[in-house]
Amino acid sequence: MGQRTTDAVLAAMDGQDLWADLRTLAEYGKRSDGGVARLALDEDDVRARIWLIEQGKRYGCTAGVDVAANVFLRRPGSQTDLAPVVVGSHLDSQPAGGAYDGALGVLAGLQLLKALHRQGVHTRRSIEVVSWTNEEGVRFAPGTSGSACFSGVRTVNATHALLDEAGVLFGACVDDCLAHLKERHVERVDIGRPFHAFLEAHIEQGPVLERGHNSAGVVTGIQGVSWYRITVHGIAGHAGTTPRAARADAVEGACMLSSHLREVCRDPDDQVRFTVGRFQVQPDSVNTIPDQVTFTVDLRHPEAAMLDNLHAQFEALCAQVWASCEVSLESLSRINPVHFPDDIVQRMETIAGELRLDAPRLVSGAFHDAIHLAGHCPTGMVFIPCEDGISHHPNESITRQDAFAGARLLAATALDLASE
Amino acid sequence: MGQRTTDAVLAAMDGQDLWADLRTLAEYGKRSDGGVARLALDEDDVRARIWLIEQGKRYGCTAGVDVAANVFLRRPGSQTDLAPVVVGSHLDSQPAGGAYDGALGVLAGLQLLKALHRQGVHTRRSIEVVSWTNEEGVRFAPGTSGSACFSGVRTVNATHALLDEAGVLFGACVDDCLAHLKERHVERVDIGRPFHAFLEAHIEQGPVLERGHNSAGVVTGIQGVSWYRITVHGIAGHAGTTPRAARADAVEGACMLSSHLREVCRDPDDQVRFTVGRFQVQPDSVNTIPDQVTFTVDLRHPEAAMLDNLHAQFEALCAQVWASCEVSLESLSRINPVHFPDDIVQRMETIAGELRLDAPRLVSGAFHDAIHLAGHCPTGMVFIPCEDGISHHPNESITRQDAFAGARLLAATALDLASE
Repeated sequence: MGQRTTDAVLAAMDGQDLWADLRTLAEYGKRSDGGVARLALDEDDVRARIWLIEQGKRYGCTAGVDVAANVFLRRPGSQTDLAPVVVGSHLDSQPAGGAYDGALGVLAGLQLLKALHRQGVHTRRSIEVVSWTNEEGVRFAPGTSGSACFSGVRTVNATHALLDEAGVLFGACVDDCLAHLKERHVERVDIGRPFHAFLEAHIEQGPVLERGHNSAGVVTGIQGVSWYRITVHGIAGHAGTTPRAARADAVEGACMLSSHLREVCRDPDDQVRFTVGRFQVQPDSVNTIPDQVTFTVDLRHPEAAMLDNLHAQFEALCAQVWASCEVSLESLSRINPVHFPDDIVQRMETIAGELRLDAPRLVSGAFHDAIHLAGHCPTGMVFIPCEDGISHHPNESITRQDAFAGARLLAATALDLASE
Repeated sequence: MGQRTTDAVLAAMDGQDLWADLRTLAEYGKRSDGGVARLALDEDDVRARIWLIEQGKRYGCTAGVDVAANVFLRRPGSQTDLAPVVVGSHLDSQPAGGAYDGALGVLAGLQLLKALHRQGVHTRRSIEVVSWTNEEGVRFAPGTSGSACFSGVRTVNATHALLDEAGVLFGACVDDCLAHLKERHVERVDIGRPFHAFLEAHIEQGPVLERGHNSAGVVTGIQGVSWYRITVHGIAGHAGTTPRAARADAVEGACMLSSHLREVCRDPDDQVRFTVGRFQVQPDSVNTIPDQVTFTVDLRHPEAAMLDNLHAQFEALCAQVWASCEVSLESLSRINPVHFPDDIVQRMETIAGELRLDAPRLVSGAFHDAIHLAGHCPTGMVFIPCEDGISHHPNESITRQDAFAGARLLAATALDLASE
C-alpha cells in the first residue's frame, strides 16, 4: 500500500465520529454521575459488544468470537492466508469507571475500519479489531482474562471456572454471551491463532504526557511489579506510663522502615515506582502503643534486574530491627516487565514524526492486555494523555484532539504493518 | 498517736487477708478468662459496694454515700469535728479488666480499718475509705465521675445527665444504687465536704517499678496530656503510572511528619511520652497512592511548660509541607499536670524509709481520681508494680508481697496524717 493510499485512509478518519462513538458506547452502563459501570459479561457489556458488531458489519467487516468471548471485527486483506494485524483493547470498565479506559482502544480501531471502508481500501494483510474479555478483573479476578487465554498464559478451563461474588461462573456468562452473538450470526474463531502484530491504544492513566503537552506517546513496554506485605511486630503498652526506652512501638518502626525502603528506591531518573498503599495499625487506639502495623508495598520498574536488586535490599532491611520491633516480609506477587520489540517502537516513532506528532517514549505503569499479547506476537502500544492522570473514576477525561491523534498513530502503524 | 501504736496497727495488718479480699472482690463481675467486668453502677458494682459496706460495718465503721454514689467507710477519730484523712480508689473496672486496678486502693484502705479495729485504736482524726464512682469511664464517659463531682470539677447535674449506650441515665443508676444502700441503712453524706488529706494506692500500669525491683513507689504527681488529630492531605494516583516527582503521597508525608514530631519530643531524661496510636489511610488500596492519612498523637509530660513548648513546635512542623502534602493539626484535648504537695511526698518517702521500703519517686502516666482530689485537699499516691506494666486486661498481675508493701506505706502515711 502506497503512501498516497495511507494518507487517504488517514484523511478519511473522522475525529468527530470517533468522539461520537465514545459518547455512544458510554451509554452502555452509564452511571448517574457521568461515569460508566460496565462489568465484564454483564448485560451492558454484552449489549456493547452487539453494538460494536453491528458497527463493524455496517462498515464491511465480518464478526467473530472465540471461546473466551473475545470479539473480533475483521476487514479481510487482499491476502487472507496471511496472519492479520490486530488492534484493540477492552470494553469492560471499573464499577465507578470512566468512558475511555479500554473503550478508546477499541473505537480507535473501529475508526480505522470505517476509514478503510469509506475509501474502499483493502490492505495486504487483514486488519482486525478486538475487544478482549474482562480486562479489569473487577467482576471476575484476576483480570486480562481474554488476552491471557488467547496468548496461552492461562487455560480456558481455569478461566471458565472463575466465579463472581454472586457465585456465577465465568464460563456460564461466556455461554450466554455466545448464544446472544450466535443469534446475530457471529462466527466462532479459534483462540490463539497467529497474529502478525497486535497494537493497543490506551489512555496513559498517569501524568507524563499531560505534563509534556504531548497528544500521544510511544510505549516501549510495561513495567514489572512486585507486591509485598510487611508486618512490624511491636509490644502494646499504655501511652502514658511506658518510657520511650521500654517501648517497641510498631508505628515508629513501620515509619522508619518504610522511609528506608522508600530511600533505596530513590533513583536519579525517577523510574522506580514505590507505593505504600495500605497501612493498618493494631489496636488503633489513641492511648495505646501499637503492637502491630501491616503495610503493603507496590514496587514497579521496567527492568527485572532492578526489581531483583530492590528485592534483595528489601530483604536486608526487613531483617533488621526497627524501633525494637521485629519485621516479617511476604512477597505477594511478582510479574516481570515486558519490552515491546524495537522494530515496533521505532516504526511507531517514525510514523509519529511523519504525522507531526511529538510522541515521546514512555513505559506503561499499568497493566494492559498487551502484556500477554507481547508473548504471542510483535506488540506495541500508543498512549494518549488523560486529565490529571485520573482513571478508574467517573472523572476520567481526555480531549477529542488527543483521542484522534492517538487513533491516527495507531491506524498509520497498523496500515504499515498490514502492508508487509 | 505514738510510734508504738502505729507499729502495732501496722503489725495487725494482714497480707494474706488483703489478698483474700482481692480474690473475693474479683468474684463480682468475674469473667471466664479470669478477668473482671464490673462496669460503673452495674449489678456487680452495686453488689461489690454492698459487700464493701458489710466489711466496714463488721470492722466497726459507719457507712456513708453521697449524691454521686461515692461510698465511704468511716472509723471515727477521737476528734470527730476535724476533717478526716481519706484513702481509697474505685471499684469499677474495664470491660476486660483485671482484679487490681482500683480494687487495690480500696482494699488497702479496708485493711487499715481492719487493723485499727483489731487493735482497738482510734486515731485523732477520723479515717475514711472511699470508693469513687465510675473512674474508668467505660459505661459512662468521661470517667472519674465521682471524684470530679466531689472536687467540684464537674457538676452533679451534668454528671447525672450522662447516658450509657443503652440510653440509661447515670442519675437513674445512682438513684437505684442509693435505694439499695438505704435498705442497708447507709447514711447520706455531703458531697464536697472538707478532707484533711486524700491518699490513693494504685497499680503503676507501667514498667518503672518492676524494672527497678521496687515493691512500691512514691508518686509526685500526674502528668498532663494533650491529644492531637493530624491530617495529611495528599493526592490519589495510580501506583504504577505516577512518577515520584508528580506525587503527593499522604503516607510518605505522614511518616516524615510523625518522625519529626517524635524527634522534637526526644528528651535526654525520657520524660516526654509521645505516641502515635491511630494511623488511618485512604483509600487503603495496594496500588493507589494514598490521598489522606489521619493520625493521632497522645503527648504527656509532668510540666505544663513542656507541653506548651511542644505544642508550639507541633504547630510549626504541621505548618510545613511534607512530601508535597499540606497538613492540618487539631487539638482534641489538653489536661494540665498535677503536682502533689512536697509535704505529702516527703512524708511518704520518710515513712517508706522507716518501713525499709526502697520506694523511688515517679510520676503517674495514667489518670486517677487523685488528679481531681489534688484540687480539693493535700493529696498523695502510692504505686505498686504490676507485671509487664499490663493493666486494663485480664492478665493484669501483681504479687501479694507488693500489694502488702503498698498497703503498709499507704496506712502508715494515713496514720501519720490522722495524728495531726
